[in-house]
Amino acid sequence: MPASSLDQLCVNTIRTLSIDAVQKANSGHPGMPMGMADVAYVLWTKFLKHNPQNPDWFNRDRFILSAGHGSMLIYSLLHLTGYDLSLDDIKNFRQMGSKTPGHPEYGMTPGVETTTGPLGQGFGTGIGMAMAEHFLSHKFNTDNHHLVDHYTYAIVSDGDLMEGISHESASMAGRMGLGKLIYLYDSNRISIEGSTDLTFTEDVAKRFEAYEWHVVEIDGHDHDQISAAIKESQSVTHKPSLIVCKTHIGYGSPNKQDSESSHGSPLGEEEIKLTKEAYNWESENSFHVPQEALSVFRKEVEKGEKAEREWNQQVTGYTEAQPAKGQQFQNWINRDLSDELEASLPVFEADEKGMASRAASGKTINAIKDTVPNLFGGSADLGGSTKTDINGHGSYIVDKPTGRTVHFGVREHGMAAAVNGMALHGGMIPFGATFFVFTDYMRPSIRLAGLMKTPSIFVLTHDSIGLGEDGPTHQPIEHLASLRAMPNTTVIRPGDANEVSYAWKAALDNTTGPTLLVLTRQSIPTYARTNANPASLVHKGAYVLEDSDKETPDAILIGTGSELQLAVEARVQLKEKGMDARVVSMPSWELFNEQSEEYKASVFPKEVVNRVSVEAGATFGWERWIGAEGTAIGIDTFGESAPFQDLYTHFGITVEAVVEAALE
Amino acid sequence: MPASSLDQLCVNTIRTLSIDAVQKANSGHPGMPMGMADVAYVLWTKFLKHNPQNPDWFNRDRFILSAGHGSMLIYSLLHLTGYDLSLDDIKNFRQMGSKTPGHPEYGMTPGVETTTGPLGQGFGTGIGMAMAEHFLSHKFNTDNHHLVDHYTYAIVSDGDLMEGISHESASMAGRMGLGKLIYLYDSNRISIEGSTDLTFTEDVAKRFEAYEWHVVEIDGHDHDQISAAIKESQSVTHKPSLIVCKTHIGYGSPNKQDSESSHGSPLGEEEIKLTKEAYNWESENSFHVPQEALSVFRKEVEKGEKAEREWNQQVTGYTEAQPAKGQQFQNWINRDLSDELEASLPVFEADEKGMASRAASGKTINAIKDTVPNLFGGSADLGGSTKTDINGHGSYIVDKPTGRTVHFGVREHGMAAAVNGMALHGGMIPFGATFFVFTDYMRPSIRLAGLMKTPSIFVLTHDSIGLGEDGPTHQPIEHLASLRAMPNTTVIRPGDANEVSYAWKAALDNTTGPTLLVLTRQSIPTYARTNANPASLVHKGAYVLEDSDKETPDAILIGTGSELQLAVEARVQLKEKGMDARVVSMPSWELFNEQSEEYKASVFPKEVVNRVSVEAGATFGWERWIGAEGTAIGIDTFGESAPFQDLYTHFGITVEAVVEAALE
Repeated sequence: MPASSLDQLCVNTIRTLSIDAVQKANSGHPGMPMGMADVAYVLWTKFLKHNPQNPDWFNRDRFILSAGHGSMLIYSLLHLTGYDLSLDDIKNFRQMGSKTPGHPEYGMTPGVETTTGPLGQGFGTGIGMAMAEHFLSHKFNTDNHHLVDHYTYAIVSDGDLMEGISHESASMAGRMGLGKLIYLYDSNRISIEGSTDLTFTEDVAKRFEAYEWHVVEIDGHDHDQISAAIKESQSVTHKPSLIVCKTHIGYGSPNKQDSESSHGSPLGEEEIKLTKEAYNWESENSFHVPQEALSVFRKEVEKGEKAEREWNQQVTGYTEAQPAKGQQFQNWINRDLSDELEASLPVFEADEKGMASRAASGKTINAIKDTVPNLFGGSADLGGSTKTDINGHGSYIVDKPTGRTVHFGVREHGMAAAVNGMALHGGMIPFGATFFVFTDYMRPSIRLAGLMKTPSIFVLTHDSIGLGEDGPTHQPIEHLASLRAMPNTTVIRPGDANEVSYAWKAALDNTTGPTLLVLTRQSIPTYARTNANPASLVHKGAYVLEDSDKETPDAILIGTGSELQLAVEARVQLKEKGMDARVVSMPSWELFNEQSEEYKASVFPKEVVNRVSVEAGATFGWERWIGAEGTAIGIDTFGESAPFQDLYTHFGITVEAVVEAALE
Repeated sequence: MPASSLDQLCVNTIRTLSIDAVQKANSGHPGMPMGMADVAYVLWTKFLKHNPQNPDWFNRDRFILSAGHGSMLIYSLLHLTGYDLSLDDIKNFRQMGSKTPGHPEYGMTPGVETTTGPLGQGFGTGIGMAMAEHFLSHKFNTDNHHLVDHYTYAIVSDGDLMEGISHESASMAGRMGLGKLIYLYDSNRISIEGSTDLTFTEDVAKRFEAYEWHVVEIDGHDHDQISAAIKESQSVTHKPSLIVCKTHIGYGSPNKQDSESSHGSPLGEEEIKLTKEAYNWESENSFHVPQEALSVFRKEVEKGEKAEREWNQQVTGYTEAQPAKGQQFQNWINRDLSDELEASLPVFEADEKGMASRAASGKTINAIKDTVPNLFGGSADLGGSTKTDINGHGSYIVDKPTGRTVHFGVREHGMAAAVNGMALHGGMIPFGATFFVFTDYMRPSIRLAGLMKTPSIFVLTHDSIGLGEDGPTHQPIEHLASLRAMPNTTVIRPGDANEVSYAWKAALDNTTGPTLLVLTRQSIPTYARTNANPASLVHKGAYVLEDSDKETPDAILIGTGSELQLAVEARVQLKEKGMDARVVSMPSWELFNEQSEEYKASVFPKEVVNRVSVEAGATFGWERWIGAEGTAIGIDTFGESAPFQDLYTHFGITVEAVVEAALE
């Protein structure tokens, strides 16, 4: 059934705004907003629960434009429905410092829930949001009070569904039965190189049915079908839904509809004129917003205020009925950490044999699980190895909806995106775990966490050749360097069990970006701590673990993680040889970079140029700390398969090597 | 139907060898070899076309153990069927320098076709092998002579199928209709954390049908069913096949069958005893190989020799019938490059306006397409942007089986694994292309190319903030550093069109690892070349583009890619201010590292400590070249969305910044 003329006017307002903004920027993607305007219009004005005046309202529906290149679609919707995004902002599309960057970016534009553009990321992030909603609703809701009760919607594209992450995330969501996840697939049969027949002929509906999704196929330009499909999907409460919307990319453009030419370039003035004629558009001016259309969209403001007001009453009633739980709910959604957190951190006795830092991490997780009751996470099918089970709280979904250990499956990428999604949603403190080398599989999501300043925590074990026999495919080499080089990403490689404990605290304290905890498979010593070298100094990134007796040390030995012990032992041997060295433990370059110049100079006095770093990873970048005269001991080739002690000897990462380098 | 007792003896020989080797190493994965021994036995003795005495025979079937953790399965098969892998090698499983590392590694063990272990990689690599077979068979075969005519088999696991790359690769292979690809799926319903019910309940058969695969489900312990399924799959010539083999992990172990406890640890002496009893095993000795069983397996030697002999006759006949094509076939499989290659490289006139290096790359590809007639590749749905179409030769599959431009779809990871697979197969010179930032999506496969020393070529455009409006999600920052840190991976970021031309030559010349060509979206100047600074110096990694008049330059300005022009212009301005600087173009750190110390010192004389590097990427690692006194100009935060000229100014990557740094 055709939409009413007023509905059509509204839809065409989305289209023309998008067309005009792309044209003015002379850059962008008009085709997708034109094609999906009908679907978006119906969703945003008939279904979406949101409050344009308060984009942070906790119980809003989450909406993700996974096909982020169609950013003008969401900018148009945000402007029209009354978010703090002006027509001038729209006119500044893709310009320096504007609120309308090329792709939607979380934190830059009110109403943008997550950064998208790298295909598949929005798809995966939404799963995490739906997981968070699902967990929190079971944790807090009562029969009378529904504190957490919203949908997670996304618009996804052919490109999203070609990406591997869409498979990992969809398979996971299907198993979890996330009924409040509803994805609208823009099936326009066009990708950048041309028809999807070139390379994408799979049966998407059948594929998603295989994932245990509810699938419905509709004409994406028929408003009744769109409404009916969303209603039907809402009624399916134990499966995620995929609504396959058959659409026309570049809808209405006489010469570019259904062609890749409308995808990634401005239509051009002439074609815009013809397109607006085809829409029976009433104005020749760019960025024209008809008043009748605006009135329809702006009803969202009042609806949204009312919805939030009613929810606030729910929260008040809930808190009156059960104050403690009400307080907990507030703490969780504010990400307030307990004052008792630090006291609950485990303290490990000095012990030459020590323990693997992954083991210390497992003990830390289980020591803080009550003071951080919203800590929630799991592993990509390596729980026993990464030591990340939250014991005694059951498995999420498998045991109960409020289980705290997640079985992500062998899906590192899907896991990382889901962790980002949970962190963005709020209410939980999520983490994901795998072997360090497999950060390669989830790198696009780690990067997005950095870009979005999302407090995602990743536990990454088996962090070097120290994993031994599994060999070079499983032994990280360049990974420390490659992640240290990534902006706004904090890498911490603790050097003993007590550093692990405080590394976890640093991760929990970091609310402006992801933290990566890099941990050993093998045992490492636990050091004696004094007032001079408390493990809490992890927060400074580097500190003097054992100092020279001299005012100016003869040398500085820098160790991280499992190689800290080599520096410590080398110091003893050097002392016997008459060289009085300082040992610096350096678990985190990023945290150290944040310290004052004074502190930095106190750890690395300029006059000490005899410096040796030792780390079982690429030496790449260590010149920054050891200077031109220093020596970096590490491994710049791939590893090998053998018992780990043999590997350390083979690759020359030994006490002797440190001693020799310092003496040279 | 139960297997004969001799067949059972053979199967149990595979099992017991695997069990014993894992036990002796005290590390490894016995469960999978025990579960898949029946399938592997039938495949290897009844179907696999191979020559144990010549693992490099070109027309052999390719066999991939994608579930690489079950490495003892393939080592057992290789030993038993007569490859150069002794029982002592088996006993040295997972020890330093052995031919039996923890996971199968290409180049270390005869008969191992590709390195596996990181899940999904074998699955994706096999697609490339089947593509190569498919292309070459259509290119060379005649009605009378079948030079290229083999299957690509793989054993894949639950873990492989959970990984996103399995989706990308399967969807691609389905579209391509690769009928000679036959994958055997070890459906044992157990992954590391326990039952696959925990997280993997998708309908795999239905999913693969959706990808346009032929799917058959069998009892993976019934030899007749295994044979019938392989025969049926061979008869389906226009679809890839997935044989779902229902198996029992840890088959025969009284206490560990069907349990995750048999997956990744030795069974233990006691359980081994019980298991061998269950097999009615004839010996209590470890590593026992019954003579009757060995005789069955060793028939492969004779069969293989005969098969290769017959094939050699085919080749001889073919070459006699059409000598030129026969010669071409030999050249291709030997990866011989034409003597005319260098002469066919395009030469670009000096031009201040110049062109984008991606454009120069497109021109280079099309200039050399006849001298490198087996150059074959394409893009992850960005062909128009990456400029990688091989014009006039049609699209692979879409136009014809011998089309040379591949439409990989938005599947970077699947693309990279396929490129590796084609490179491993031999006969073709494959490349894949995408935006540089999306190397994050394909990093695990790039790393494997480095580890395997595979000559994969990757064309990576839009290499910095220079891409402009698409914003930070699309702007690489840390990517140069993160890939330079990766062992055995050559990164080349050419500084003008002529450097691009020779960068392609360097990529073609590199047969011991992957080469990454990192290219601009935006135009950059083309420099005048003299005998002193020919673009062929790209091969040295860094060279003096413009020199100081002084014997010892006052400063060295180092530029790469699009920032080379800033160094060149800064030199002019510095000269006006009385400073006589040298400009070094440094397209590749890795190539430079390979040069003699003498050459390196000639480019970077020790006495010149005033050094400035300029590159629109992370400064991470530049200390190696600029020393403690130098300045690295770059960008260590994420980018922004704006026209690229604005971004360069905003982030301070300018001529002025270079001048200022040099003067300081």
